[in-house]
Amino acid sequence: MIQIRVGIDAMGGDFAPLEPLKAVKEFLIHPELGITPVVYGHLELLRPILRDLHISESDVEVVHCEQIVEMGEHATKAITQKKDSSITKGTIDLASGHIDAFVGAGNTGAMMVASIYTVKPIEGINRPTITSVLPKVNGSYGLLLDVGANADCKPETINQFGTLGSVFFKNVYSHSGQARVGLLSIGEEREKGNLVTQAAYPLLESNDRIEFVGNVEGRDLFSDKADVVVCDGFVGNIVLKVCEGMYYNLMKRGINDDYLNRFNFKHYGGTPILGINAPVIIGHGISKSDTIEKMFLMAKNVVDSKMIDKIKDAF
Amino acid sequence: MIQIRVGIDAMGGDFAPLEPLKAVKEFLIHPELGITPVVYGHLELLRPILRDLHISESDVEVVHCEQIVEMGEHATKAITQKKDSSITKGTIDLASGHIDAFVGAGNTGAMMVASIYTVKPIEGINRPTITSVLPKVNGSYGLLLDVGANADCKPETINQFGTLGSVFFKNVYSHSGQARVGLLSIGEEREKGNLVTQAAYPLLESNDRIEFVGNVEGRDLFSDKADVVVCDGFVGNIVLKVCEGMYYNLMKRGINDDYLNRFNFKHYGGTPILGINAPVIIGHGISKSDTIEKMFLMAKNVVDSKMIDKIKDAF
Repeated sequence: MIQIRVGIDAMGGDFAPLEPLKAVKEFLIHPELGITPVVYGHLELLRPILRDLHISESDVEVVHCEQIVEMGEHATKAITQKKDSSITKGTIDLASGHIDAFVGAGNTGAMMVASIYTVKPIEGINRPTITSVLPKVNGSYGLLLDVGANADCKPETINQFGTLGSVFFKNVYSHSGQARVGLLSIGEEREKGNLVTQAAYPLLESNDRIEFVGNVEGRDLFSDKADVVVCDGFVGNIVLKVCEGMYYNLMKRGINDDYLNRFNFKHYGGTPILGINAPVIIGHGISKSDTIEKMFLMAKNVVDSKMIDKIKDAF
Repeated sequence: MIQIRVGIDAMGGDFAPLEPLKAVKEFLIHPELGITPVVYGHLELLRPILRDLHISESDVEVVHCEQIVEMGEHATKAITQKKDSSITKGTIDLASGHIDAFVGAGNTGAMMVASIYTVKPIEGINRPTITSVLPKVNGSYGLLLDVGANADCKPETINQFGTLGSVFFKNVYSHSGQARVGLLSIGEEREKGNLVTQAAYPLLESNDRIEFVGNVEGRDLFSDKADVVVCDGFVGNIVLKVCEGMYYNLMKRGINDDYLNRFNFKHYGGTPILGINAPVIIGHGISKSDTIEKMFLMAKNVVDSKMIDKIKDAF
């Protein structure tokens, strides 16, 4: 089996470095999963955890990084100032080909900025984007994008999200090879919406790389109307957090329901940054090792499916 | 007891004219509630229902309206072309003082347009707005506005929503007299958001008619961070429908939970159009008589509390 080399930001996330290293151990124990982890982090902080987890330093490549980007830091400042952080070094190694993919549950903005600076956007793409999975009542999944990377979007950018989301969905989530794209709006009719979505509608309609199904409303995110729903990152982030809030509040009330439980982010293991030249997977800050393992597997899926080549072909 | 005269669009809503007339009967039977209903609709269609409900035509004022605005009609076209519809005649009678308030569960856009044409916005108000109630986990309620009347908003308009929502909340929902106003955004820090919310933030901050508590995120809509949350009508409408969608999907799965049940719109009975010169209450198209009764009571609450005078004072 061909092994792919996946770097991980061992300093990223609320439970770093323990939980990232627990995930690393899983792939060291199971080489048949086809992933060779490469660890980015501060050696002094990693060593005691490696020891506790019975991981020998000779069994795993560790790239020492002197600096740490904190969760609350300003993304651009952190990346321009902390040249020796795990996020910066990981994305640089990805750009150079030393690793095949990079995953991390740290500062999302910093992961985004570092990736754009080093791995760089694919030519023709305005704004790389991040996605979220939304569970549907029929048991399948839908993809929502952008969910926070780009608060203000031009109509053409939303149209590009349609193509990016479509390629991603077909590669990772679709059984049928189908990816119906909807535009998040406030009414089904084409003239409904705000100025940006009204202008994005005809672009999506004439985009021959996608199967556009028109406007979808908030409630349709959970129905079978569309597989991929596009919106600006302001709306998408708010929708995501409304869903998270409702899930969390109901779960705390002791409701145990198969559908509701599917709103737990931990099942999904993060999102690739779509539109850059190599696979970077961003996870939720509160991810534990099981979720981080899913991020590694997502990285492998993106590499194996040649998703990025397919995106390049589309632009 | 002083009786107030509340007009109702008996042709409005999915179950018109039966359900509106059932609500009318309730107030005819219970004059102690202080509401004298005035019915707007097509006499030929109303008569058989009045007979079935044992309402004598001598007991209720019926204003015959030759035309009907359908649910799916284009709002401005309908109102400019159908001068003899129940919505047009009701709002004209409200503007002239023949009735003290007007309620209806019909075409929301048409109710909005007719109200702006006839009742007119209060001087100084850019855009009248509609609200929605969101249940909080602590048992209280929060107000979200705008929820669909104004898809694109200027920062100053969002600031005005803060004042309008604050006055409404204090009059109808607040026990403490407090109304903390939050700005819906994608991060707590003041610089987070899109261009419009970033520009609205300092306006809200320096608005001395409100108690501004800063940005709130999607998940905070159900927490105790703010009583009134402002946003443009595009975002607000999507949030509302995401909540409705989740409520509906979970309820259909047989989940019976006190908190979840509070997402059922029927408890709330509609929203006033905030920012116009007289009380118009808009309800959900699928409202039954119990919800329409709440719309009448909301109208009385708005009249009795002199909310509109308080809004005029604030502008």
